[in-house]
Amino acid sequence: MKPVKLGICGLGTVASGAVNILKRNAESIAGRAGCSIEVIQVGSRRLKDNCDLAGVDFTTDVFDVVCNPEVDVVIELIGGYDVAKELVLKAIENGKHVVTANKALIAVHGNEIFAAAAEKNVTVAYEAAVAGGIPIIKALREGMAANKINWLAGIINGTGNFILTEMKDKGRDFADVLKEAQDLGYAEADPTFDVEGIDAAHKLTIMASAAFGVPLQFDSAYTEGISQLSTADVEYAEELGYRIKHLGITRLHKDGFELRVHPTLVPEKQLLAKVDGVMNSVLVDGDAVGQTLYYGAGAGSEATASAVIADVVDIARAINVDAGVMVPYLGFSPEKITDLSVLPIDEIVSAYYLRILASDHSGVLAKVASILSEQGINIESVMQKESELQDGKIPMIMLTHEVKEKNINVAIEQIEALSEIEGKVVRIRVEHLSS
Amino acid sequence: MKPVKLGICGLGTVASGAVNILKRNAESIAGRAGCSIEVIQVGSRRLKDNCDLAGVDFTTDVFDVVCNPEVDVVIELIGGYDVAKELVLKAIENGKHVVTANKALIAVHGNEIFAAAAEKNVTVAYEAAVAGGIPIIKALREGMAANKINWLAGIINGTGNFILTEMKDKGRDFADVLKEAQDLGYAEADPTFDVEGIDAAHKLTIMASAAFGVPLQFDSAYTEGISQLSTADVEYAEELGYRIKHLGITRLHKDGFELRVHPTLVPEKQLLAKVDGVMNSVLVDGDAVGQTLYYGAGAGSEATASAVIADVVDIARAINVDAGVMVPYLGFSPEKITDLSVLPIDEIVSAYYLRILASDHSGVLAKVASILSEQGINIESVMQKESELQDGKIPMIMLTHEVKEKNINVAIEQIEALSEIEGKVVRIRVEHLSS
Repeated sequence: MKPVKLGICGLGTVASGAVNILKRNAESIAGRAGCSIEVIQVGSRRLKDNCDLAGVDFTTDVFDVVCNPEVDVVIELIGGYDVAKELVLKAIENGKHVVTANKALIAVHGNEIFAAAAEKNVTVAYEAAVAGGIPIIKALREGMAANKINWLAGIINGTGNFILTEMKDKGRDFADVLKEAQDLGYAEADPTFDVEGIDAAHKLTIMASAAFGVPLQFDSAYTEGISQLSTADVEYAEELGYRIKHLGITRLHKDGFELRVHPTLVPEKQLLAKVDGVMNSVLVDGDAVGQTLYYGAGAGSEATASAVIADVVDIARAINVDAGVMVPYLGFSPEKITDLSVLPIDEIVSAYYLRILASDHSGVLAKVASILSEQGINIESVMQKESELQDGKIPMIMLTHEVKEKNINVAIEQIEALSEIEGKVVRIRVEHLSS
Repeated sequence: MKPVKLGICGLGTVASGAVNILKRNAESIAGRAGCSIEVIQVGSRRLKDNCDLAGVDFTTDVFDVVCNPEVDVVIELIGGYDVAKELVLKAIENGKHVVTANKALIAVHGNEIFAAAAEKNVTVAYEAAVAGGIPIIKALREGMAANKINWLAGIINGTGNFILTEMKDKGRDFADVLKEAQDLGYAEADPTFDVEGIDAAHKLTIMASAAFGVPLQFDSAYTEGISQLSTADVEYAEELGYRIKHLGITRLHKDGFELRVHPTLVPEKQLLAKVDGVMNSVLVDGDAVGQTLYYGAGAGSEATASAVIADVVDIARAINVDAGVMVPYLGFSPEKITDLSVLPIDEIVSAYYLRILASDHSGVLAKVASILSEQGINIESVMQKESELQDGKIPMIMLTHEVKEKNINVAIEQIEALSEIEGKVVRIRVEHLSS
């Protein structure tokens, strides 16, 4: 299959992330796309040293890229409105598919851009424009295709959510946390877009249109920021069983739709209320599926680039579609399926919870600890429930550090053989699910 | 565009859900698919009275459906292994695309079925086989296409999660809750598939293969059920800051991959630990995007049918693909975009949180309540912080029931005009996010 050739405009953090991923995962991406994906040209005012552009043509004029006859897909990552719009329209005019992460561009000029793209029969894909690496546009346009989407609500600005989380967890005030967010690089020097809800309104505008099939209407979005929020209200909300989140909400009615971004009290039992820090999450209510929720990193170099590349793979698959068969059965072309086997359970590594019913002798813990130690098993914590003493036996609860399953099994066998131990040891695996 | 014609095999709960959704949302589904989707034949041993089959050919022999030359896509919803396999292979042989919700079939016979489908160049889609209405297969095969997926962990059996949630929340024991789940219809009369992890292992097997690009290897999955779990361990885990969840976990290594279903302690701060009741959720760790999480109904008539129809829409779009443009820009064909406007913020309906700084006079609350009442606003709760009395003023916190924004604004203006009230009233919207 012919490779799909990319031209990237802009070389900021998302672009260098994309270049790096396309190099690192070239083989698996090609296995999924059905052809190789090659960056052939990058246009940017200056080079970056955190990404390797060996073999890639470099130009300081982004318009070179959209006019390059070799480029199949233009990746617009310069941001902003005017030049980006001109660039994207030029790419479309030249018959190129476009992938963009530019939420402002799509929210404000999307209707015009899509109309131009329809004329020239090219794709304009924008998964990366909303909620970074979360495939929410795909969920709305494809996964929910059976549904009348009633409404959706999302935490779609990581900076704002970080600030609210700190205010709640540490009782700090808005200005104080904003300063830290700026020092950490989460917030821009001019934080207006983030904290006043403009960035969220861009994303919400796009989601509303993809959910309801209505034109983009950013100018009519209602926005209210979090800068006026006091710690007192955050605390009172918590006392009442709520969390304050900066939500983008859109809801379909017969005679119109709501489009609003503002601080919102959300019941603490709602999953959305539990999304903390810089993470993003969107809750979607459909008439057939009910509620589904999507969660992940809403920003960041490789998280956003992940969405850019997913759009490129979609385009490559659509170009190569054969008799209606587009996505390979197991995600990879059949000839790229790896013949890898399942590992035996003995070989897995896990932490463990152990419950051991032991005599109330001072020496038992030492014996158990020594057996574990011989198998190279470190104990993270021990809890002994003296209050549950029955017939001279008490339960001893242990959490271990990570160890191979076969080692814990040997240790358990030896523990069960101790005269001070009654019955079987209860063993449950513990997973911290960290990256 | 030519309609896509469906033949449905089986007329159980998912099939009748699909028939009902395709009728109810026919217009929007056609707007999304780019052509109408028509059920032309249903094969089942008997008719059902909860779905309207007017104009649809009915047969008691499901093999009629896969041999019907008019049928473009066969929807396999008969379940089980042997007949379903024969039926799907016959449909493929006859050049038909297949959509199935049958996790057992795909997990056990998927390799053979996909090989046959590749020969005949037809699609076999199975979104509905895993986690019901959550578009997790789409996320793995498409949304995460840029990533090397490192691992995933999921709550993928609603019955099991319902039982564990009840055990934790109410201290009930396994057998007791299982009986209730059976009475509620959540659990089968023979609950083995659900509580011993076989159903979860089917789904995990499929997700592992779609994530890593490896052959389906259900026979090598390790499964451990929840039937041996005691309430004591659920409680001890909670004391230690964990929840016990029945997880399916698969992790990629160089020399193989883990594939295991078992009770697992998960730190309570993890979002996955907070997924309760019959809901499903899958956490995916990718090298570029980091962690993303997907949540929704894992079963149910229309939730599962939502995934079946999403697969059909994908097939319709791939059949109608034009020069690489597959999914319409805003999810709907450009000519189907509805010209709907954003409603003014005054017209939205919301509940409200109010903080009012008032004199410590007994009559103030009555005055405020009377103003709210005149605007048709009901008070859900009031909290007055006597301990925060300062200069004779105390904060009065109120939650209202739902009301139009313009009414609350009128009330607030009147409240602020009261001589007993100091400064502005703080007003924050409250959303319960219920369906």
